[in-house]
Amino acid sequence: MHILIIGAAGMLGRKLAQRLTNDGTLGDRPIEAMTLVDVVTPETPEGFRGKVTLETADLSTPGEAARLITGRPNVIFHLAAIVSGEAELDFDKGYRINLDGTRYLFDAIRIANGENGYKPRVVFASSIAVFGAPLAYPISDEFHTTPLTSYGTQKAICELLLSDYSRRGFFEGIGIRLPTVCIRPGKPNKAASGFFSNILREPLVGREAVLPVSDDVRHWHASPRSAAGFLIHAATIDVDKVGPRRNLSMPGLSATVGQQIDALRRVAGEKAVALIRREPDEMIMRMCAGWAPGFEAKRATALGFKAEQSFDEIIRVHIEDELGGKL
Amino acid sequence: MHILIIGAAGMLGRKLAQRLTNDGTLGDRPIEAMTLVDVVTPETPEGFRGKVTLETADLSTPGEAARLITGRPNVIFHLAAIVSGEAELDFDKGYRINLDGTRYLFDAIRIANGENGYKPRVVFASSIAVFGAPLAYPISDEFHTTPLTSYGTQKAICELLLSDYSRRGFFEGIGIRLPTVCIRPGKPNKAASGFFSNILREPLVGREAVLPVSDDVRHWHASPRSAAGFLIHAATIDVDKVGPRRNLSMPGLSATVGQQIDALRRVAGEKAVALIRREPDEMIMRMCAGWAPGFEAKRATALGFKAEQSFDEIIRVHIEDELGGKL
Repeated sequence: MHILIIGAAGMLGRKLAQRLTNDGTLGDRPIEAMTLVDVVTPETPEGFRGKVTLETADLSTPGEAARLITGRPNVIFHLAAIVSGEAELDFDKGYRINLDGTRYLFDAIRIANGENGYKPRVVFASSIAVFGAPLAYPISDEFHTTPLTSYGTQKAICELLLSDYSRRGFFEGIGIRLPTVCIRPGKPNKAASGFFSNILREPLVGREAVLPVSDDVRHWHASPRSAAGFLIHAATIDVDKVGPRRNLSMPGLSATVGQQIDALRRVAGEKAVALIRREPDEMIMRMCAGWAPGFEAKRATALGFKAEQSFDEIIRVHIEDELGGKL
Repeated sequence: MHILIIGAAGMLGRKLAQRLTNDGTLGDRPIEAMTLVDVVTPETPEGFRGKVTLETADLSTPGEAARLITGRPNVIFHLAAIVSGEAELDFDKGYRINLDGTRYLFDAIRIANGENGYKPRVVFASSIAVFGAPLAYPISDEFHTTPLTSYGTQKAICELLLSDYSRRGFFEGIGIRLPTVCIRPGKPNKAASGFFSNILREPLVGREAVLPVSDDVRHWHASPRSAAGFLIHAATIDVDKVGPRRNLSMPGLSATVGQQIDALRRVAGEKAVALIRREPDEMIMRMCAGWAPGFEAKRATALGFKAEQSFDEIIRVHIEDELGGKL
């Protein structure tokens, strides 16, 4: 089996490539080759025994998509996107990368499908940003997609294309709406939602973290391990069981900031909690009010997608995967 | 006031241009000029006293959109599209006309907005084809858009673009999801949904019509007069009252075929009903099962959009507007 990961240098792309390497198989089939693509050269995952090809490419350059699929990968993970903040600041770039890039990829596959019946599985990383306030809680699988950002709009459009191209038989598409990934490894970044991870990750290693919102803010989370698991499960499920609605809100954990902090206290003690510094930020609080508090995710759950059941578990996953298993 | 109608040669475009001509004003402002555009040359509406410009243009040709808005129309009605059946048969053409053409128009306005603050009202004719089975009945304003045709996909994508471009301040967009227009004037056509109109229009003038489905098929209707009224109302409502969700399911009449026939009997007698010939068509019955039975349309109703309350009324509108007021 040959796997192509577009957006392989990002946090999720690296997690996925490493997980596939560790598994050695995807859906019981051995992985012989991986092609890892990003706008910066991706890293080779540690310990992969098959053939790895590293590519630097921008999917939004015409012709690149066709080149990337010349090896006719069996499974394509499309994770490449510019993030919400950048798509909002640079209108043209957002539409070019997040919409046109995806459409080039889908059309390159469609043309290959017409030539010789090539029909890969395509797993597309969508986002809960396809939903916009006012939101229900929990959000059902039949709730409308009315994004309030250009990023969310671009993801929602790609979801529609994915369903139509799948219905037409050009490929087997599955779009997964990822919860906010928490605890996101690495350093604190400038994303407005970064604090959800910062207030756990930093105190766990004795560093201060800033909390800009109140304890009752509720949001929707899954660990990086679960996120990689969603992608892998999406690559192997029976698409006939999914039916024509190919975009699925993933399961996750709905929790308030207060519940996050309670879990931190249980796992790492009061000393860790004391490292959270409250600095209310009006702008971030306003943004938070528009974010999804939680989903039913009935369809995805019935299809076998799995996430954490508590924030204690999310913290333990972080300790195992990022801190070598100990505090 | 200068009005641009793209898709002005179609049934709805002609109704709209004539209605605007008869009114002489739009939202209390006199209409000084109309530019009527289509892929075939549109007709000049009867009795228009202002300046009419007729244009033959294909919106999907790069550069045409910018040319069409050089006169900086205050209101743009975008009705141009290839129909569902053709978009399904010709994948490339459907995406080129229905998606790329619309995006060219939106981007031409965006660029003009950046140059000198041009910010027209843009009324986009969307469709209930953005919804796909299994459907609720009635369909709420918060039901998700999961189209099952390429046409419906293209309309749903344009709705997302319309909302995002409006949110960004490039224009004041309103998308309206039109019910099936009934009684559609003209001759019976090959559209699978044509029978809804045929079984009324033809018997009203003493001609036979074929009914391919059973009497219990329920669908969602509005007269051509209402459809033109929706477009005009969309051009004049306060967009601040609409908010960021710019696409509205229009009000209409949910009725079964049996109720249509009962109304025909009341208005035109048993002799007219006897002209309906039942010829069940398995394929059309299967297609019907996926069509929307009816909508709540709460938001549009609250915003002042109005449709007929009974099929008797829909038939009377046809008699007034198409048959000179008498049977």
